[in-house]
Amino acid sequence: MKVGIINVTGYSGVELARLLRHHPQAQLVAVTGRGAVGQKLGDVFPHLAEIDLPIQQELANSVDVAFSALPQVASAQACVPLVRAGVPVIDISADFRLKDPAQYKEWYQADHPAPDLLEKAVYGLTELNRPALRSARLVANPGCYPESAILALAPVVKEGLVLPDIIIDSKSGVSGAGRGLSLGTHYSEVNENVQAYQVGGHRHLPEITQELAHLRSGFQPRVTFIPHLIPMTRGILSSCYATFRPGAFGTAEQARKAVRELYRESYRGETFVKVVEAPPQTKQTWGNNDCLIYPTVDIRTGRLVVISVLDNLVKGAAGQAIQNMNLMFGLPETAGLEHIAVYP
Amino acid sequence: MKVGIINVTGYSGVELARLLRHHPQAQLVAVTGRGAVGQKLGDVFPHLAEIDLPIQQELANSVDVAFSALPQVASAQACVPLVRAGVPVIDISADFRLKDPAQYKEWYQADHPAPDLLEKAVYGLTELNRPALRSARLVANPGCYPESAILALAPVVKEGLVLPDIIIDSKSGVSGAGRGLSLGTHYSEVNENVQAYQVGGHRHLPEITQELAHLRSGFQPRVTFIPHLIPMTRGILSSCYATFRPGAFGTAEQARKAVRELYRESYRGETFVKVVEAPPQTKQTWGNNDCLIYPTVDIRTGRLVVISVLDNLVKGAAGQAIQNMNLMFGLPETAGLEHIAVYP
Amino acid sequence: MKVGIINVTGYSGVELARLLRHHPQAQLVAVTGRGAVGQKLGDVFPHLAEIDLPIQQELANSVDVAFSALPQVASAQACVPLVRAGVPVIDISADFRLKDPAQYKEWYQADHPAPDLLEKAVYGLTELNRPALRSARLVANPGCYPESAILALAPVVKEGLVLPDIIIDSKSGVSGAGRGLSLGTHYSEVNENVQAYQVGGHRHLPEITQELAHLRSGFQPRVTFIPHLIPMTRGILSSCYATFRPGAFGTAEQARKAVRELYRESYRGETFVKVVEAPPQTKQTWGNNDCLIYPTVDIRTGRLVVISVLDNLVKGAAGQAIQNMNLMFGLPETAGLEHIAVYP
Amino acid sequence: MKVGIINVTGYSGVELARLLRHHPQAQLVAVTGRGAVGQKLGDVFPHLAEIDLPIQQELANSVDVAFSALPQVASAQACVPLVRAGVPVIDISADFRLKDPAQYKEWYQADHPAPDLLEKAVYGLTELNRPALRSARLVANPGCYPESAILALAPVVKEGLVLPDIIIDSKSGVSGAGRGLSLGTHYSEVNENVQAYQVGGHRHLPEITQELAHLRSGFQPRVTFIPHLIPMTRGILSSCYATFRPGAFGTAEQARKAVRELYRESYRGETFVKVVEAPPQTKQTWGNNDCLIYPTVDIRTGRLVVISVLDNLVKGAAGQAIQNMNLMFGLPETAGLEHIAVYP
Repeated sequence: MKVGIINVTGYSGVELARLLRHHPQAQLVAVTGRGAVGQKLGDVFPHLAEIDLPIQQELANSVDVAFSALPQVASAQACVPLVRAGVPVIDISADFRLKDPAQYKEWYQADHPAPDLLEKAVYGLTELNRPALRSARLVANPGCYPESAILALAPVVKEGLVLPDIIIDSKSGVSGAGRGLSLGTHYSEVNENVQAYQVGGHRHLPEITQELAHLRSGFQPRVTFIPHLIPMTRGILSSCYATFRPGAFGTAEQARKAVRELYRESYRGETFVKVVEAPPQTKQTWGNNDCLIYPTVDIRTGRLVVISVLDNLVKGAAGQAIQNMNLMFGLPETAGLEHIAVYP
Repeated sequence: MKVGIINVTGYSGVELARLLRHHPQAQLVAVTGRGAVGQKLGDVFPHLAEIDLPIQQELANSVDVAFSALPQVASAQACVPLVRAGVPVIDISADFRLKDPAQYKEWYQADHPAPDLLEKAVYGLTELNRPALRSARLVANPGCYPESAILALAPVVKEGLVLPDIIIDSKSGVSGAGRGLSLGTHYSEVNENVQAYQVGGHRHLPEITQELAHLRSGFQPRVTFIPHLIPMTRGILSSCYATFRPGAFGTAEQARKAVRELYRESYRGETFVKVVEAPPQTKQTWGNNDCLIYPTVDIRTGRLVVISVLDNLVKGAAGQAIQNMNLMFGLPETAGLEHIAVYP
Repeated sequence: MKVGIINVTGYSGVELARLLRHHPQAQLVAVTGRGAVGQKLGDVFPHLAEIDLPIQQELANSVDVAFSALPQVASAQACVPLVRAGVPVIDISADFRLKDPAQYKEWYQADHPAPDLLEKAVYGLTELNRPALRSARLVANPGCYPESAILALAPVVKEGLVLPDIIIDSKSGVSGAGRGLSLGTHYSEVNENVQAYQVGGHRHLPEITQELAHLRSGFQPRVTFIPHLIPMTRGILSSCYATFRPGAFGTAEQARKAVRELYRESYRGETFVKVVEAPPQTKQTWGNNDCLIYPTVDIRTGRLVVISVLDNLVKGAAGQAIQNMNLMFGLPETAGLEHIAVYP
Repeated sequence: MKVGIINVTGYSGVELARLLRHHPQAQLVAVTGRGAVGQKLGDVFPHLAEIDLPIQQELANSVDVAFSALPQVASAQACVPLVRAGVPVIDISADFRLKDPAQYKEWYQADHPAPDLLEKAVYGLTELNRPALRSARLVANPGCYPESAILALAPVVKEGLVLPDIIIDSKSGVSGAGRGLSLGTHYSEVNENVQAYQVGGHRHLPEITQELAHLRSGFQPRVTFIPHLIPMTRGILSSCYATFRPGAFGTAEQARKAVRELYRESYRGETFVKVVEAPPQTKQTWGNNDCLIYPTVDIRTGRLVVISVLDNLVKGAAGQAIQNMNLMFGLPETAGLEHIAVYP
């Protein structure tokens, strides 16, 4: 299988290259970049030196599947012609995630270049969307925050166990902000520091709301989502808070037991989503495709608390994208993704 | 004024020593330690070499005020005789914070050695408790998390504007766990990692609940408090979420405006509590006694979000303690605490 | 091939487990620990949960090869019986590195339990010692600092190009100090800090000196080796300084050109040792078995400067050990070690 | 005394503002910036909010002394008119450090705008240059690396004890690279990483060489200087290596003893330069004006090793500049600089 990466020069792009390098069935045959065109991949990223490919302006070679790791808007522009030409595309950007072009415009300040494709795009959260993904030709790979939050909340939402008022407090490493320069990702500003950002509304909010609503007919979530930037490179931890529907359970202890059982059942058989017995740490997923989920109930208030962790560049981006590719092409979902986390 | 520090060898103790060194009215005359007895302070902590004091077993010199930076239980044992002897004591540990001895036993697994003093101890959150602190002889200095959370919530709680359901999601640097060794504070385990901990109930929860309840008659808060450990040395950021009492405000926009005005009014004239116009960063308080508070309203859900930051070793411990000493002794509250944060 | 790890509970041990998990020809069948005996590997190290093995007191199963990741002294005690019983052993500790029992005693403050085996042990720096390693039954895996320094200096030493006066200034991440607790690896002490340590003589010094001397008959190196601890988890960078033998080269420019050519030639065909054209970064080897070497000449002084980087837990410990195993068993040297560095 | 800062918006500038804020004799009356002109200082740097000054295009107010924290070239352009107008100037940039305009051109790729002032400028390493600094009107504040290296080497160089071959291996935090954005200071690139940089020749090399040569008539140092970037914000550690002149001392032990005595003697009475008995840590100078120096002799090789640490933004920049101002104006040298390091 011949694979191309559009915009290999961002962090999602290099992570795709790293993971695809040893994929047993896929071969990386072409990469593009917005900068560094004409250079060897290894000249820009020494750790990728063994992948002997030049960075091209456009995907010259014909590929069986293309990953786009461009930022939004630019990504849609690059993907649309490929999709129209029949090339399967997995878009890591946000361009095909929101179903409503008006919402897209509101959050991304741009008219969507191909609103007709929004309907056809399949939201690429593999564990929740397998049937549609199997036959997808255009995958909207989830955002890193939504990936962590939706997996954390899906079981109780699907079962109608929680009220619509949901709080998601997420903590992310800095690589989620990409390789582009800004004062907000300047080392001396970020190190030994923590802050909330985009408190007035982060672009991943409508994505989370849309996908939670899809999980259960009639469910209209009212989500407060506050992301925080913390001084580390990789990893997201989302702490999710919700209130059970009255009568959902008996005592808080019973709720806790039942919820854990529900989560274990919901993700039984999943390789990458693991329901764990103790609060997980992002380091336990460093460099691999796992999402660890710890559901519990605050005994004193009866409130649901779910904590999830993942590596924002793997399960939150490149790994999730490859998992989708595997599914689309009938390969084992774990192909090329069997890494153990690098600890410590 | 002659000052002593009981257990100078922990992080709160050394921070007290640093801050007291240049206090215009106080002179550090004696320090004790549980280890390193007999050594010079500067032999154990080179940065304190200019303070020419030996580490003693007990406070030999007579002092006008004693700070205890011992861990709980041990601290009460050291403080009680001093209090009984009429020495003003500021206890940085948790031993005199909870008013109910039964709660103390539940959370600290020990019988309180002097329940009669619990009544007399004054909770040392200066900005909320000035009258009582002025005449206090035993101050229970607040925990670092409660300091950040209570300051963040006090204005709306006092005014009866929010429902009792409150979520506090806190992120702390590692120094809050002290200088004692544990795998959980081992560099290679903590670096490039984030985790929630004590999810089943952190000891600062009853303290937060007790103090919020004190702010308004009849208010019975139901708090979920989840602390997180993040890879930095100093700093706490607390994100607090609450729902307004129905009818408290008109639109969400109006609520936001009114809440900001309320906070500005509540903390008007305070040197150390600053209501800010943008989400604050812990680095903005690195090494100083400030607490920055950003109150806002999530326009889409109408929910209250308050974010507060402080340096856990200063406003969350040693600085707060000195502020209390200043108040007790009729000094300007800012004496010895006028540092600008060290940035970057 | 059945493989056992003695003391899986340190960082070298868990790294061995991670790397062996997906080794195409080796199967991890038994692990021991000094603590946590009886627990599942995954209970202690959640990231290793898919390796379904209990932590045992001793290697119960018969194995085709044993890795020891015990600290020195304890390691010799565990390895000697295995060696005597004919089990091939790769010892990651320092116990079989120094050839002279008197030196061992001087540096490790213990009598060597099996001086007769020192002769038989083969120093496991694969790239420099292949013939002996092929038939080795006891491998003394190099220390992390010596690995980086010897690879950096071997080409010029072998060719007799430098004077014996050599300075090695190394910078290491904290994981090199292991998983044992100490104030020196306590997060709040190490973060945002750098220091030289064991300036009076680090145990890796005699190892470096011994191995450099072995490279060329009559060469008697006088090495100053100063290690530094820097605030990161993984990685070693060694900056090596030496003076060329008078007449070794013409101008400094010629020396630079010749030296680069010599290094390229020396390591031609090596998969894991890469001579690079720009100063390397430890991050370029994060999690993989590479050692990157940058040899240059300071044009103004004519002095040789060689900078090398590697991941102290991989090429500096577990990966190097597996590379040796591969060689001993006639497998491709790269088996199980083909990871690309995890960047960023 | 009225003080102005030219270019307050870089890290040296904000550090000057922090330190001057509580200087007992100096009052900050004007600040300029290259960006953010017209904004309040506190709008750009919230931690400086209590300094109620606008950022101006040029120093409008008349000042008794001006600090320039501009980058090189731009700094000279700003300083020259002030100097010509008789305003005392302390230039933190490199523009007046090199005495030879040809060298300036070689290293900074620009013609010096006022070569006549190079003669008049006094190199601002206070401890080594007091008489000239007392009457200086233009001070060339030292670079952060030279500050650490020259203080570490001055005693032995002055006494003619070492040969000219000197190696300086420095490790610096990232703030030394300033607040300007670059991939090399992007958080995800720097965190968990170490690298040597400008190995072919860093601009601080000619400065070090020039000043070491000034210390002893006829001494012509041949310095190899390799700086390394390490993942922390503040701090420089320099490890300096030199060989004693033959016959300088008897045994290595004698050399060690004599050297320590020499250093203690050389810096006796200095408040900010402290000769310490154990390898120092940068954290011991975090935020203050100390330089800690540990001189020793490698017993096995007889080689001199001197390790020095300082905070690159304080003793390596803003603090050193204020120390010079104090000296120039007949104030106690320690005025405004009496902070204890912030630890941990």
